[in-house]
Amino acid sequence: MARDPFVVVGGDAAGLSAASKFRREADRDVVVFERGRWISYAHCGEPYFVEGTVERLTDLLSLSPADVADRGIDLRRGHEVVSVSPEQRTVTVEADGDRFDQPYAELLVATGASATTGALDTALDGVFTIHGLDSAAATDAYLTSPAEYDWSRLGDGPVDEARVERNAALDPPERAAVVGGGYVGVEMTEALVARGVDVHLFQRPEHLLPPFGEAIGERVADHLAERGVTVHTGASVTKLVGDDRIEAVAYDGERLPVGMAVIGIGVTPNTAPLDGTGVDRGPGTAVRTDAYGRTSLPAVYAAGDVATARHAVTGAETWVPLGLTANRAGRAVGATVAGDPTPVGEVAGTAVVKAFDLECGRVGLTDEGTAAAAGFDPASETITAGSRSGYYPGGDETTVTLLADRTTGRVLGGAIAGRDRAAIRIDTLATAIESDLTVAELERLDLAYAPPFSPVWDPVLVAAKVLNGRLDD
Amino acid sequence: MARDPFVVVGGDAAGLSAASKFRREADRDVVVFERGRWISYAHCGEPYFVEGTVERLTDLLSLSPADVADRGIDLRRGHEVVSVSPEQRTVTVEADGDRFDQPYAELLVATGASATTGALDTALDGVFTIHGLDSAAATDAYLTSPAEYDWSRLGDGPVDEARVERNAALDPPERAAVVGGGYVGVEMTEALVARGVDVHLFQRPEHLLPPFGEAIGERVADHLAERGVTVHTGASVTKLVGDDRIEAVAYDGERLPVGMAVIGIGVTPNTAPLDGTGVDRGPGTAVRTDAYGRTSLPAVYAAGDVATARHAVTGAETWVPLGLTANRAGRAVGATVAGDPTPVGEVAGTAVVKAFDLECGRVGLTDEGTAAAAGFDPASETITAGSRSGYYPGGDETTVTLLADRTTGRVLGGAIAGRDRAAIRIDTLATAIESDLTVAELERLDLAYAPPFSPVWDPVLVAAKVLNGRLDD
Repeated sequence: MARDPFVVVGGDAAGLSAASKFRREADRDVVVFERGRWISYAHCGEPYFVEGTVERLTDLLSLSPADVADRGIDLRRGHEVVSVSPEQRTVTVEADGDRFDQPYAELLVATGASATTGALDTALDGVFTIHGLDSAAATDAYLTSPAEYDWSRLGDGPVDEARVERNAALDPPERAAVVGGGYVGVEMTEALVARGVDVHLFQRPEHLLPPFGEAIGERVADHLAERGVTVHTGASVTKLVGDDRIEAVAYDGERLPVGMAVIGIGVTPNTAPLDGTGVDRGPGTAVRTDAYGRTSLPAVYAAGDVATARHAVTGAETWVPLGLTANRAGRAVGATVAGDPTPVGEVAGTAVVKAFDLECGRVGLTDEGTAAAAGFDPASETITAGSRSGYYPGGDETTVTLLADRTTGRVLGGAIAGRDRAAIRIDTLATAIESDLTVAELERLDLAYAPPFSPVWDPVLVAAKVLNGRLDD
Repeated sequence: MARDPFVVVGGDAAGLSAASKFRREADRDVVVFERGRWISYAHCGEPYFVEGTVERLTDLLSLSPADVADRGIDLRRGHEVVSVSPEQRTVTVEADGDRFDQPYAELLVATGASATTGALDTALDGVFTIHGLDSAAATDAYLTSPAEYDWSRLGDGPVDEARVERNAALDPPERAAVVGGGYVGVEMTEALVARGVDVHLFQRPEHLLPPFGEAIGERVADHLAERGVTVHTGASVTKLVGDDRIEAVAYDGERLPVGMAVIGIGVTPNTAPLDGTGVDRGPGTAVRTDAYGRTSLPAVYAAGDVATARHAVTGAETWVPLGLTANRAGRAVGATVAGDPTPVGEVAGTAVVKAFDLECGRVGLTDEGTAAAAGFDPASETITAGSRSGYYPGGDETTVTLLADRTTGRVLGGAIAGRDRAAIRIDTLATAIESDLTVAELERLDLAYAPPFSPVWDPVLVAAKVLNGRLDD
């Protein structure tokens, strides 16, 4: 009798990476159930479609259903896994109003995450979250005047045409509120400004991009303000006001008339299929996984935005829903299920974001409080230094925050911002941190120097030098 | 009786870094003898002055003599140290036709390196090496038509005015030969093209930039050709032909009429002051130094382009005359002499170079033959991968060569080329190599991903994945 297939729930980064790797390594069947119509798309590209930088919606697709079929994967779109029976080793699937049970030998839950909206009413026209190609398409349509809407921008994909049509029929807004000053909020602010909208950005904490630290949060706020954005920090949007269409946002006793709101206040893992299984959970209610992506249920794996991971600095369980983590973990689970046990890898929390011309990166622990809570004795420094030799044009002052443990000297985290190749420099710190380097070792690294690219002492080295000097005291 | 001073020979990167650090840390005298008129200038910026990217010659100065005096350093320009007596602990100094002996408690030889020209006759007008501000000024003057020469470009420094005047009086060339396809040759090629000159680049080896490996050498050659440069590889220039002024270069039995030649075939350490002392030498006849910059002579240190260093990958003595090494080693020696023993640090051979729009970086061992000779069992792969998400505009195919040891999996070296933030990515590899990471560890690094800066799998990770797959076989 043939063995039951490897069943994957979710046809995006983690799920299809797993299925593809599995098929390359094993001569067994793999079935992927995807509840939606879209598969394998680049979430991170959605703001750039809205901005107009990406020409067609379908440019954001990595793999077509035909590509997936060519890889020997049995992909079933419009199939929602509604429950899992770990005892029976079956999943219950709903499709086209029918329901059936599918046995599995191994199961991977790769259902991703969804945007949260808190207590805000998102049913009003003109209110958007940016999570999925249909919402990106609807947002773009809403921003375009009815007479100018160009359907060819959608390309040839299974878009929700009714939703696009309704939004394209509405007059575009003159002013928008972006609620949330994280990655999505900052990227959507840039996108909306590019579309000619007057943007008010609301952030509940005192700084934008909290994972990047205060210095960089302030630099981003200044840069957005230079571009005409009104930045409200320490401001809570409590209500979206309107009858059918949004008319205003209410915040801190004030009211700002807007014709649009974009909500980017966070995401939550899509764990519904595992409800009732008693599977262990971790931070953010994400599904707890071990070094190989295994959950607490036998033969059940989880990967991507729905799963926890191990933090490279603290060694603790963490939840960092980002793209590379999902691809890597999916691929590793595919190999493991195929018989080649492969760790999913640790996450260092490396992230980069663009705000107009400003490039920002962060990795590890950037906050002394978080580091102290994790048992470290943290010290940190923030410096600014030129990105190129002073005499070579085109450089920019680069801000570097570096955090280390006083006891061991180990680098715990850092953040970088600047307009000249700043973001990619975070990879140097990510590599140093995952290699457990001390600040003294970081300071002695033989990094690149040539006038067009770096001064003799790269900003990363300057930060290490200053912080190391303080640790010596 | 007061202790004799710390004496430094050479007023450039290593020497002044040492003197500055020493004065900050110790309450003792330091004397710096510099044979020339210039101090503390950016060698690496000279091609960009010639190109016109750097406006004034004096923009290349880091410190003025007044800055140095403010640091409490006794700087004597126009003072040449002609010999060292390790027994007496004195140096013999020539200045203004006089000669005197200067006792030292500790001595640092930081005399740098000079351009070599092999058997080529460099006395002809129109023949230049790019090593020092006077040669940069003369080269620029030669490229400018007499009627248009602008003395203000020189700024307010001790330039050799007679030499500039002679070169400014000559009509600029239409065609130039650049002899040598290393860093200086490639950078000067870019500079001369920017000045409207028809450039023929001659390289004796089969590829440009040999330390970057064949794949990148070929990519650079293609890029130069696209910009109208005639690249001659495997071609030996044997003679510079002319009476007073260069008229042609002879190579491989052929003869090319040119009005200019720039020689960039290498440098040699300026060890003359130590002649007759019996000091130990290392590769390239550079002065052998230990982990603290000490030579084989008591109380005599060497740092910068004149000294050897320890290689981070092979652990062997090496000679890599580059700017960061000089600054760092000088600073470390200054601290050590001041009483705080500080290692000069290893060198990984990290280097970056720009060729028009193409950015190139290299680190460690990039050649299988060199790696095998150092006792490794090398394997290497070269890949190309996009620098950004495919749908985000502005990216470029990035070439990555990665070399590792089959036995241990350790990353030994790599090189990168591309037009979009390629050079600075070499710092990721430099950090990995100095941290002794394996290819498998490199592949699992949590590097940055965001569409404007990197695809999900950064080109560095793609290279690691492919090479690791081969090591697994």
